[in-house]
Amino acid sequence: MNAEPQLIDSGLRAWKFNADRIATFFNALSEDQLQQEIAPGRNRLLYLWGHLAAANDALFPLLGIGPKLHPELDAMFFANPDRAVASVLSRSELKDVSSQINDALWTAFSGWTTEEWLQKHTSVSDEDFLREPHRNRYTVMLSRNTHMAFHYGQAILGKARA
Amino acid sequence: MNAEPQLIDSGLRAWKFNADRIATFFNALSEDQLQQEIAPGRNRLLYLWGHLAAANDALFPLLGIGPKLHPELDAMFFANPDRAVASVLSRSELKDVSSQINDALWTAFSGWTTEEWLQKHTSVSDEDFLREPHRNRYTVMLSRNTHMAFHYGQAILGKARA
Repeated sequence: MNAEPQLIDSGLRAWKFNADRIATFFNALSEDQLQQEIAPGRNRLLYLWGHLAAANDALFPLLGIGPKLHPELDAMFFANPDRAVASVLSRSELKDVSSQINDALWTAFSGWTTEEWLQKHTSVSDEDFLREPHRNRYTVMLSRNTHMAFHYGQAILGKARA
Repeated sequence: MNAEPQLIDSGLRAWKFNADRIATFFNALSEDQLQQEIAPGRNRLLYLWGHLAAANDALFPLLGIGPKLHPELDAMFFANPDRAVASVLSRSELKDVSSQINDALWTAFSGWTTEEWLQKHTSVSDEDFLREPHRNRYTVMLSRNTHMAFHYGQAILGKARA
């Protein structure tokens, strides 16, 4: 195995490890546990789960894979704070939607060549990308992975309160 | 720029972004804030700061850079839970020690070639590494970066309580 696929493999392993443990964590929570706030007055676990699903769904257009699978997540869990939207997805809906998003992302991630990983993301112009070639798909994936870990650390604290 | 340095650059940017924001966060906390627990009965912010410093210090031997710079951190902030060790570093000591560790790690990280990044870490045998070439320095760095983000998410909640 030469160096490029090895470096990509490392990034993908970090993503998969994190995405899988987070899915396992949230899938095991009850309705009651999902209503628990991560700290008094802060986001509920349900919101955090939806927030991670919405952030990952936003990767489809950002990485040029296609449109969001569930654009309705944005208003519920991303653009607005917790409880701002009265009607949000239920536990079982969120479970299905999350796993659908994660599976489809993983399918895209697993198929890309090095060149495809180093393509620009869709929020950067051709001109800027010439100057800043690090604004590519691989960088976005790594940064979104630390975002997942950041909230997972909080979710663990929330579960301990439930 | 060809693909290999670009992929490594992405990983290094993710590390630096995270390490820098975490340093900025903890450096700005007062003595009182550092005594705050991230949640009732959980680790204090001081412990979390020391824990991240200890985890990063452990990268020196794990990545074959050299011995730990501050082996005393391990008992205070890693091997034992918070408050198990009566005398731990003060705020100003921890600030110095953290920045010393981060700077020295960054010096090592910035200097490695692709081949050096793909070398095995020191906890894997030559035999296992042949079968599992992903157990390399680059994979360790990415995984330690998500560990930092995990605890940073918790630290943010702790500061809001202080």
